[in-house]
Amino acid sequence: MNNLNMTDLILKKRDGGRLTQAEIKFFVNGVSDGTIPDYQASALLMAIYFQGLDKDETFELCNAMRYSGDVIDLSGIRGIKVDKHSTGGVGDKTTLIVAPLVAACGVPVAKMSGRGLGFTGGTVDKMEAIPGFRTSMEPDEFTNQVNSIGIAVIGQTAHITPADKKLYALRDVTGTVENLGLISSSIMSKKLASGSDAIVLDVKCGHGAFMESESEAAELGKTMCEIGNAAGKQTVAVITDMNQPLGCAVGNSLEVIEAIEVLKGNGPADITELALKLTGIMVYLGGRVKTVREGEIIAQQALQGHGGLEKLRSFITKQGGDARVIDDYSLFAAATVQRDFVASEAGYVQAIDARAIGMASQRTGAGREKKEDVIDPAAGIYLHKKVGDKVARGDCIATVYGNNKKKVEAAVKDVAAAYTLGREKTDPPKLIKHVLGI
Amino acid sequence: MNNLNMTDLILKKRDGGRLTQAEIKFFVNGVSDGTIPDYQASALLMAIYFQGLDKDETFELCNAMRYSGDVIDLSGIRGIKVDKHSTGGVGDKTTLIVAPLVAACGVPVAKMSGRGLGFTGGTVDKMEAIPGFRTSMEPDEFTNQVNSIGIAVIGQTAHITPADKKLYALRDVTGTVENLGLISSSIMSKKLASGSDAIVLDVKCGHGAFMESESEAAELGKTMCEIGNAAGKQTVAVITDMNQPLGCAVGNSLEVIEAIEVLKGNGPADITELALKLTGIMVYLGGRVKTVREGEIIAQQALQGHGGLEKLRSFITKQGGDARVIDDYSLFAAATVQRDFVASEAGYVQAIDARAIGMASQRTGAGREKKEDVIDPAAGIYLHKKVGDKVARGDCIATVYGNNKKKVEAAVKDVAAAYTLGREKTDPPKLIKHVLGI
Repeated sequence: MNNLNMTDLILKKRDGGRLTQAEIKFFVNGVSDGTIPDYQASALLMAIYFQGLDKDETFELCNAMRYSGDVIDLSGIRGIKVDKHSTGGVGDKTTLIVAPLVAACGVPVAKMSGRGLGFTGGTVDKMEAIPGFRTSMEPDEFTNQVNSIGIAVIGQTAHITPADKKLYALRDVTGTVENLGLISSSIMSKKLASGSDAIVLDVKCGHGAFMESESEAAELGKTMCEIGNAAGKQTVAVITDMNQPLGCAVGNSLEVIEAIEVLKGNGPADITELALKLTGIMVYLGGRVKTVREGEIIAQQALQGHGGLEKLRSFITKQGGDARVIDDYSLFAAATVQRDFVASEAGYVQAIDARAIGMASQRTGAGREKKEDVIDPAAGIYLHKKVGDKVARGDCIATVYGNNKKKVEAAVKDVAAAYTLGREKTDPPKLIKHVLGI
Repeated sequence: MNNLNMTDLILKKRDGGRLTQAEIKFFVNGVSDGTIPDYQASALLMAIYFQGLDKDETFELCNAMRYSGDVIDLSGIRGIKVDKHSTGGVGDKTTLIVAPLVAACGVPVAKMSGRGLGFTGGTVDKMEAIPGFRTSMEPDEFTNQVNSIGIAVIGQTAHITPADKKLYALRDVTGTVENLGLISSSIMSKKLASGSDAIVLDVKCGHGAFMESESEAAELGKTMCEIGNAAGKQTVAVITDMNQPLGCAVGNSLEVIEAIEVLKGNGPADITELALKLTGIMVYLGGRVKTVREGEIIAQQALQGHGGLEKLRSFITKQGGDARVIDDYSLFAAATVQRDFVASEAGYVQAIDARAIGMASQRTGAGREKKEDVIDPAAGIYLHKKVGDKVARGDCIATVYGNNKKKVEAAVKDVAAAYTLGREKTDPPKLIKHVLGI
């Protein structure tokens, strides 16, 4: 590796060549330790954007990033640990529902989740909307909690896949995010470093997602399954719709409340359907049942019998949160401003631009624009009407919450613009497109 | 320009968009003042490598770089000032011959030349092989010298096109050199900032050149002529062969001696032919004659009558050099080591790899690898045989000069490997391919 030279690597990839394992390790190590300057890294990333990475290069890149920092050892936790990852979307609070349901079905949940820039916070930000909830703990405490109550969710440590963190930050500002090899290796490096035994990926497609088309999302899912399986971890990908937001709530407290409603059996149909499907797959991968179908049946039972809800209660309590929020939503921080978007004529909701809703949500204070931004847990948007719903003149279509009147009022306009209303009856879109890897 | 964002510019070019004048100015200014980080600049350069620049973008980029620093005012010099630029090759000492010839024909030569990394030094380095020769002077002194003796050659000031300097340094280490729009705008930004009224470009093609194929070189020449003419400066491009070195001498003192020999009428045929062609064009662009043909005739007269040689003598003297070198080559620093490459069998020279000769020359100490390297003026290679020449067994094909025995001996091997000898008779390649812009 001593004779490798970054300029040569860039020229090789630029001219359509295949990078070797040694070259990819040289690149990732050099990015990690700072011996390769950012301007050369970004030039290589742009060359990769145009020339792509083949399967072997993608595996090697993923592996080099996976081992660039700490690799978590979950062997102290009994049972098959199944991790879940969503490529991100608007209103995606699935982890808050799936984690307690899976634990209620007897499969251990030892989850490290992210914060994140974007439309709302990450899972960790959402959990912190619960008063008192702690998302950091020592490794021993984490292991003991999962062994005792079957579930723990904490924030990611700073030491996992530092090379991926550096490269992602660079990709974000150099127009090199949207590449199959780079996206799949980035996601999977984190998943593989997180120590689980099996992985379920929720790959979103549509206007509100990374991958707009279903075929691109399927290709991403397939590539990630190949990476996971090659690393000896059974990996399943579910391709799901993200043209409209998932469920009705967008924003941190609002989403926790909606997750609780789902676990009570009163949640919106779409998010409930997806949560049961993901739980079914995870329970199956966890070895608890022989088929995904059986997994979905016991997931359904855990929902109806409130097993998931009670697991959520003990989980919140164990991590220092006030579990009374489950029965009393007024314990969440309240928004001081709320404004409705009201229908000016009758019709049907034809479409809801998920990305526009996400940006409106960020505008209310529910998401971060910069890393340093503080999230307002009370801010967000509630969609009373979704695609296919009938609307009468004067109906409240959506409500925007926040603590800054100007921002809330601006967000109402954005929300109104995100809706397409029309006279024709419309079917709601199919949420779960297909499942890969089983 | 306040709302421009570098990430958006990168995405636009990446996706095949056209950058506006405002966007290109924003980019070049940001690179100049350091507000745009190198990692974003290199990502844009790589996107440009793949997506190209159209004619307007190339003009705008050239213009923005042209005005990024000082723009030289040559209006104090009487007459039409014609600049000459070579895209670079091995053994190219044309400026040393052309500058005194043009001045001898009555057209003022006010030239700023470069040093440079590469196989040998730049024109300024070569001039400095003459004992005592000074290549820096104050602007007034420069103007006065051209007005009094018709010729001055100095090193480039540090303040011309700083944006181009920064971008070129970045391109050099990020695999983004070889792009028509970037190359042509870079060269022409310097030429246009240098203040001449007309420009002659010697665009090399072949193994020893930037552009390998004649068609690429012609495209580069055409683009640069368009840029120059659009800026109101008549621009002519001569496309010339660089498959074998130009002339016989490669190295700083060796090349000065060969230039003197050409001016005495004893030089190699190829470099003499090219020098007369370039002089003819420059004399024509300088308004001294009505056609290039007439220009070539008076160039020929200046050569035969030793007008060029005498102009060189007064030019060397005026810039502090010891003009006795013209008659006594022993006044140049001598090499302590010299080794011959001798023919082991008879035949004809089929090819000489110009790039390999250039690298061997650099190895002897004649060129810089790093900016800080000190050039050895005595080092270099003399090619006794060129393509098409007949070789008898035992003939000396080439001699390598230097001051480090090991390096000289290694260079002899490189030189031997650069030659292709064979039994078939071969014609020498055509040196001047065509002339564009007249």
